[in-house]
Order: sequence, then C-alpha cells, then structure tokens
Amino acid sequence: MSSIASVKVRGIHHLGIAVADLDEAISTYERLFGARVEDRDELSELGVSAASLFVGASRIELVAPTGEDTHVGRFLARRGPGMHHVALETTDIEETIRRLRGEGAQMIDETPRRGLFGLEVAFVHPGAVHGVLTEVVFNG
Amino acid sequence: MSSIASVKVRGIHHLGIAVADLDEAISTYERLFGARVEDRDELSELGVSAASLFVGASRIELVAPTGEDTHVGRFLARRGPGMHHVALETTDIEETIRRLRGEGAQMIDETPRRGLFGLEVAFVHPGAVHGVLTEVVFNG
Repeated sequence: MSSIASVKVRGIHHLGIAVADLDEAISTYERLFGARVEDRDELSELGVSAASLFVGASRIELVAPTGEDTHVGRFLARRGPGMHHVALETTDIEETIRRLRGEGAQMIDETPRRGLFGLEVAFVHPGAVHGVLTEVVFNG
Repeated sequence: MSSIASVKVRGIHHLGIAVADLDEAISTYERLFGARVEDRDELSELGVSAASLFVGASRIELVAPTGEDTHVGRFLARRGPGMHHVALETTDIEETIRRLRGEGAQMIDETPRRGLFGLEVAFVHPGAVHGVLTEVVFNG
C-alpha cells in the first residue's frame, strides 16, 4: 500500500455535467460564463457525446446521451440534468488506484481504461466517496 | 449589459459537496486523495457547517446540515449525499451578476451576500444552468 506522501493528486481536472442537448448547454456556458470550447468527442460504446469547455482556467465536461438506454440517458431520466461526476487528475493512475483499493474504496474500474478526450481514466464508486461519482484521470 | 470581453470568470473556486457527517467526510478525502483542511466555518442562519479542503491545487467545500429542517438537510433527505453546487470565482461579482441578469439567468441572490469563509457570493438558480446550482464568488 502506498504511503500518503506518494499520492499525487493535482486537483480537479474537470467537472462533468450531464445535459440533454449538448449545443444548447455549450451556448449557455458561453453566454453566462464566457466559456470556450476546447474539444468535442464521442464514446459510442458508452453512448455519450461530449464537449470539453474552459471556464476561466477550469475545465467543464458536458456529456449528453446518444440515446435513452445509455448511462447518461438513464441519469437524465432519473435525476434530470446536473452535475454527474468530478474528475481528479493524478500523476500516476496505477498508484492512485492501488491506494484507493488499499483504503477499501470500491472501484468501478479496477484498471485504467481509455476515456473521453484520450484520457486514461478509472471511476471510483460513488458509495466510497459520499455519493460523488469520482473519476481519476491521467493526462498523458 | 456588459460585453462578453468584460466577464472575468477565473475558474472553479470550489466544488460544494453535501455530506451527513463532516468529520467522516474530511477523513475520506484525506485518506483517498491526500486532501488537507484549509479552514472550517459555520453559517448558523443557513444551518450549515462546512470545511474547505485542498485536493491538490483545487478546493472542495464539504457542507453538512446543522439540522434536518435546513437547505442541506432537505437536500440530503431528498437526494442523499453528493455534489451540491459549483462555485465560479469572478474578479467582479457585481458585473458578473449584471451580465447573468442581462442574459436572462434567474438569480437566487440578486445582490452579493456574505457566504461561508468570508466570501462575497451570489447563487444562480439551477434552472438557468442546466440543473447545476452555480455560485459566483468574489474572494477579496
């Protein structure tokens, strides 16, 4: 098990927000907060279409479902649009996963996988983090 | 109405997370992500007890209710613990509120008020931001 000193979490990489209409949501963040689109991406296997936005120096990831029978589609049906996950950037995703498992945190992804925007990601079960769906990401 | 060039949103000031037990949640963020407590505060008129944590360079604000019949108490009863609000830091809160109102965004606070940790804050109605309770803050 890693010592706490070796955990290298840089901070919030992005805040993930589930929306019904990607273009409308991009427009809202542009108008209200001067957001700028960084990139767009899709993960067809997860049924999600996404836009990465900068709001000042911070990143917001808007995710929209490509259909109702998708993770984000069901999230929207159940809870409506809103904050979906927070991603924490780490300098060493394998070590971070080991530490999380060592602390007894239930992982959705036990090993890193390829996420949106080419990131290496692993999701922690929200039950381990007081109801917050938490993603750890490694950004190359 | 302000021009978009004059909007000065610096980025995410903090992510607000509603929890039932403040000390337990602090311990979780310390153990899992190496968080460090920056400060603690209470707003008795809102029935909220809070801790500000650094996770890497980013700030997480844990908020716990001081009773069931409070905003956060009702949030927990309705949705369980989880992400509650996101705060965006601005260099000019009056101008930011004017811009938001000019864009037709419904404000919870039409003028800045004193929030936790001595911040000047104003909340935007989640209905204006795709279900995300959004706070704009000015940090002195």
